[in-house]
Amino acid sequence: MRNRIFPAVIGLGYVGLPIYLNLQKKINTVGFDIDKKKILNLKKKIDTNNQFKKKEFFRHKINNFISNYLQLKKCNFFIITVPTPIFKNKKPDLRPLLNATKIIGKIIKNGDIVVYESTVYPGVTNSICVPLIEKISKLTNKINFNVVYSPERINPGDRKHSINKITKVIALENYKIKKRVSFIYKNLTNKLFFTNNIEDAETSKVFENIQRDVNISLMNELYIICKKLNLNYENVIKIAKTKWNFLSFNPGLVGGHCLPVDPYYLSYIAKKNKINTKLIIAGRKTNDLMEKILYKKITSYLKKKKIKYNDKLLICGLTYKPEVADLRNSIAYSIFIKIRKKFKNCSGFDPLIHNNEVKKFSILNKVNNYKKYKIIIFITKHKILIKIYKKLIINNKKIILNCML
Amino acid sequence: MRNRIFPAVIGLGYVGLPIYLNLQKKINTVGFDIDKKKILNLKKKIDTNNQFKKKEFFRHKINNFISNYLQLKKCNFFIITVPTPIFKNKKPDLRPLLNATKIIGKIIKNGDIVVYESTVYPGVTNSICVPLIEKISKLTNKINFNVVYSPERINPGDRKHSINKITKVIALENYKIKKRVSFIYKNLTNKLFFTNNIEDAETSKVFENIQRDVNISLMNELYIICKKLNLNYENVIKIAKTKWNFLSFNPGLVGGHCLPVDPYYLSYIAKKNKINTKLIIAGRKTNDLMEKILYKKITSYLKKKKIKYNDKLLICGLTYKPEVADLRNSIAYSIFIKIRKKFKNCSGFDPLIHNNEVKKFSILNKVNNYKKYKIIIFITKHKILIKIYKKLIINNKKIILNCML
Repeated sequence: MRNRIFPAVIGLGYVGLPIYLNLQKKINTVGFDIDKKKILNLKKKIDTNNQFKKKEFFRHKINNFISNYLQLKKCNFFIITVPTPIFKNKKPDLRPLLNATKIIGKIIKNGDIVVYESTVYPGVTNSICVPLIEKISKLTNKINFNVVYSPERINPGDRKHSINKITKVIALENYKIKKRVSFIYKNLTNKLFFTNNIEDAETSKVFENIQRDVNISLMNELYIICKKLNLNYENVIKIAKTKWNFLSFNPGLVGGHCLPVDPYYLSYIAKKNKINTKLIIAGRKTNDLMEKILYKKITSYLKKKKIKYNDKLLICGLTYKPEVADLRNSIAYSIFIKIRKKFKNCSGFDPLIHNNEVKKFSILNKVNNYKKYKIIIFITKHKILIKIYKKLIINNKKIILNCML
Repeated sequence: MRNRIFPAVIGLGYVGLPIYLNLQKKINTVGFDIDKKKILNLKKKIDTNNQFKKKEFFRHKINNFISNYLQLKKCNFFIITVPTPIFKNKKPDLRPLLNATKIIGKIIKNGDIVVYESTVYPGVTNSICVPLIEKISKLTNKINFNVVYSPERINPGDRKHSINKITKVIALENYKIKKRVSFIYKNLTNKLFFTNNIEDAETSKVFENIQRDVNISLMNELYIICKKLNLNYENVIKIAKTKWNFLSFNPGLVGGHCLPVDPYYLSYIAKKNKINTKLIIAGRKTNDLMEKILYKKITSYLKKKKIKYNDKLLICGLTYKPEVADLRNSIAYSIFIKIRKKFKNCSGFDPLIHNNEVKKFSILNKVNNYKKYKIIIFITKHKILIKIYKKLIINNKKIILNCML
């Protein structure tokens, strides 16, 4: 290694923070985020996403967490892990990605390497990001600097497939930098898979999530059919599973930052090229439909039980999936907001939400007295909530509605 | 066993014949089909579906093959394996099932057992078939006779999952007959899975195939997107497969009697109950779209190569999937028919089609001289055709179009 490599991780959310912390164990790394409050928390070893405990801030250096982009100048290897959400009209919202790219454009130097990890549609890296860096920096890709695409495969709440146990795809077009990229990424996992085509890697990433989204939506569609036709969904699946090639997916409320978003990224670029993505979009619509169905189930139940506007209700489990503290695109949280509009004293409760976050979302992360609620509804199936549910069922005569799928 | 059980298999196609032959190995069994020509062939140990060789007609008894339903009277255990296709408007065509049921109604006696193996939508067995038997026979279900549903899981061309290696689901509502049903079915496989709900078993069967159909359609949708966006589909999949939970399905021409049909069965009953099956139908449409795409690919190629109306063409591989002799709902065969309309001297060739069947479909199952064809197109990927393709590619300077997915 001719020059010392000094990496920086841009964007310290669900993807960036694990990368930062794992790199920092082995090599001095900078963590950058435009969110100053987040940086202040991280300096104090506080992860408001509740993914990491204080003791996991290994080899902690306060000054490695920065929010002033000028301080990135000392780094020469940039890993971009900013979110790529969608607008309300379902079109890709590339603003965080473009802002991060602009920052790179301003501070990039000869010989630097930029790795994009954010999920995008095919073509974004080479047709949008690279030209933007070149324009701002007046440098030339593959001559003065190099761009790599390495799709993130962080699965929040899944300790079995943590970053150091999975295969990391690295798409680079200039094999001269392979050694330097390996030097950094081998600190994360020793399973590196190299490919020379960035667009193929961009496509593979969105497609992986689309396959999951569509398969869950198929289970949701079957679940809806079974409920409406008075068939026993659980028994149907038990029977189907006796076939050698039946795939085990569960119906559920699909939320978060990947599955409800990525299909729209691929269908956006497909539509732009006049390609139909009927199936992908049908999957999305079926999964979104679950919100309506669950909302209706709950409100019908409240009506049946003659719950009044002033009655105290509690909705437990609000994040988008079990064992995760993320409320983004959460169907459970969205249902809670809607119910609260109809019932003034409806409280939301999720024990996984960090103390620093409860105010922002006006929910509770602790409940001392369940007795004061007239009805308690369970949605997201956190292990701890299953325990609470079982306790309440045994000890109380309270009205409890189990909506945990 | 108080009385001797004497089984009959009604319908001797892709499902019925394997059941008949496997039962007949162990217990004297009658094979019934309304197709007299088929019965004549079977008497001579000829399986025009090319699934079984003469030596597989074990313990062969000419008189066990019958087409006169009155001869079924001597039997007391009926296994119905007739096809359940769809009409052109995609609605279930239950005529073969109803005709078989009417025959049962005419010959059923006290104590008899009827097993339905045909794929149906939930409710067909109990709400349509049982009342029909009762009406014709004047006997009562669960008192005078019993009905069982055991969904067939025959996978044509798949020797790995032959009937004796797979789990057989048996749905029966009257456990008093379990012993007698086991006595017959344990001759086929020792993996029997009992359930007490016929509708659940009916649903599980259609759903298994829907899951496969939707997953293949998703690969087709991605394949189309990759081709149109100039992405390398094979490389995209190679990358995606490095993820721990990526599912390995291939794009392809979905045909035959199950996948293109079963989704319409479930969506028929869903629609009747005002339930939307957007995703299931989107899967079907994408899979059907492949015919149009492949047809266009071939005709554009023929145009580019300036092939004339009189030129001799050969299309190789016409059945609905590799290693199967079945032309039903075959996209390859349908494309051949369309091309022949545009090119007078277009011949179809499939080496798997039985000698007795070639005339019926006006195709060849043998080609001696490939030289006389100006262009040769390969569609269905039979192993033997891959060999022929490779030979032709090396030895000839002929124009060859490889459409094998």
